[in-house]
Amino acid sequence: MKIFKTTKTTKEYLKNNKNETIGFVPTMGALHDGHLSLIKQSKEQNDITIVSIFVNPTQFLDGEDIDKYPHKPQADEKICEIAKVDVLFVPNEKKIYFDQETKLFAPSIKAYILEGYDRPGHFDGVLQVVNKLLNIVKPTFVYFGKKDAQQLYLVKNMVEEFFLDVSVVACETIREANGLAKSSRNTYLSKEDTLKALQISKALNIAIKYVQKGEYDAATIKTKISKQLKNLYIYYVEIVDKNFNYIDKIEINNTIVLVAVNINNTRLIDNIWL
Amino acid sequence: MKIFKTTKTTKEYLKNNKNETIGFVPTMGALHDGHLSLIKQSKEQNDITIVSIFVNPTQFLDGEDIDKYPHKPQADEKICEIAKVDVLFVPNEKKIYFDQETKLFAPSIKAYILEGYDRPGHFDGVLQVVNKLLNIVKPTFVYFGKKDAQQLYLVKNMVEEFFLDVSVVACETIREANGLAKSSRNTYLSKEDTLKALQISKALNIAIKYVQKGEYDAATIKTKISKQLKNLYIYYVEIVDKNFNYIDKIEINNTIVLVAVNINNTRLIDNIWL
Repeated sequence: MKIFKTTKTTKEYLKNNKNETIGFVPTMGALHDGHLSLIKQSKEQNDITIVSIFVNPTQFLDGEDIDKYPHKPQADEKICEIAKVDVLFVPNEKKIYFDQETKLFAPSIKAYILEGYDRPGHFDGVLQVVNKLLNIVKPTFVYFGKKDAQQLYLVKNMVEEFFLDVSVVACETIREANGLAKSSRNTYLSKEDTLKALQISKALNIAIKYVQKGEYDAATIKTKISKQLKNLYIYYVEIVDKNFNYIDKIEINNTIVLVAVNINNTRLIDNIWL
Repeated sequence: MKIFKTTKTTKEYLKNNKNETIGFVPTMGALHDGHLSLIKQSKEQNDITIVSIFVNPTQFLDGEDIDKYPHKPQADEKICEIAKVDVLFVPNEKKIYFDQETKLFAPSIKAYILEGYDRPGHFDGVLQVVNKLLNIVKPTFVYFGKKDAQQLYLVKNMVEEFFLDVSVVACETIREANGLAKSSRNTYLSKEDTLKALQISKALNIAIKYVQKGEYDAATIKTKISKQLKNLYIYYVEIVDKNFNYIDKIEINNTIVLVAVNINNTRLIDNIWL
């Protein structure tokens, strides 16, 4: 496995491999089975798989403690090596960002609801770094998890709006055996917190059952979910279509049910695609 | 000459010519000798030369009359044909812009002085469209005139900040025999206006002479220029280094002297690089 720390070495490597298909998995490190499933999918679809690890400062808001974000460089490197990643790209912040640079702003409505309502500006930073990374790596396919559904939606749109030559692949959420969606933030959870967190996937499963029984009313489904989450601090329980418009009626193949809660100061999100 | 109206046909053509070097001249049409010199330079340096004509709505502010911008599609096409342009790309606005899209914002200081002071947001729109066009055309070289010095500076920075694989070529300002810098806006000028406009290049030439005599004090040079322009409405007379920092002392090879005036409601800009 090659490990590159500069955009220059990465670009040079890619220049020498320009007839290969490139699969790209951008991450913030603290790799878990969710990331591994993205890597696996990339390996199946491409000649070369590149993983980047970059804890992107611009997607953390003032007061959000970026320094607390889990940081496990050695474990991450080992995981990538075992997963037969071809290139690990671990750029320094100064190689990615410039003083007083041109900035991307995510669209004013869709990026300022849900996750963007509680974290205004978060998606600006996400799109800024994703645009840069896509231009550096120029992948054939780029892999994002459905767990970060709003991010996936905004990235897909940006790719279209800026005519980037890459296919965005949406990958299924990976869960623990107990149903908890895999997340780097799960490391923050105590045993007790984890027990509480299990309510999230339970609530989403209850929603699935109601929909299977023919209940398509969004308000009713939201109430059922909120009831199941009654002991947690809920940021939101919302139902949107795939273009992130709020909807009243669930439409099969065009609905995402989204939940965000706070458990002991850890923000957890999860969703199901109906 | 091929004429493409959609990004799709353009991208397909480029895919079939991916081993050729591509020179790109983005324009807003109303082509003149300034554009022709960019095209000529592109033809010398590249296998394929692509010219785009797109009157970009996002770089016009509210109240600036985009509909008045000179529009000469047939003449432009003829000019490109005679100049042996390989591809003329004339996209429809709806092929370039999307509803509620991700937006680029030019850096808050350098894009909001000089041209950006009088036209706040103008450069946001310029960078938005240039980023898109560069991603569609993916040229080896892209050609911009030194006459739009601030635009050139901001585009160059954006290319670096977003890791776009293109070399930005700065092309000399082309002038009428009488010294007037070529501009699509010159068509707005009456004979009388043109006589007034000649003061601009005269003033800049006076500045050159003073500098050649050893006068490096920016304030003194600015006063000499303003004196020459005393009968015109001056937006600004400024002296900056190549990074668009205001400077007190002229430094040879690192100085741009910039002038913007209003003649009968036409904004004219010009500059010299010392």
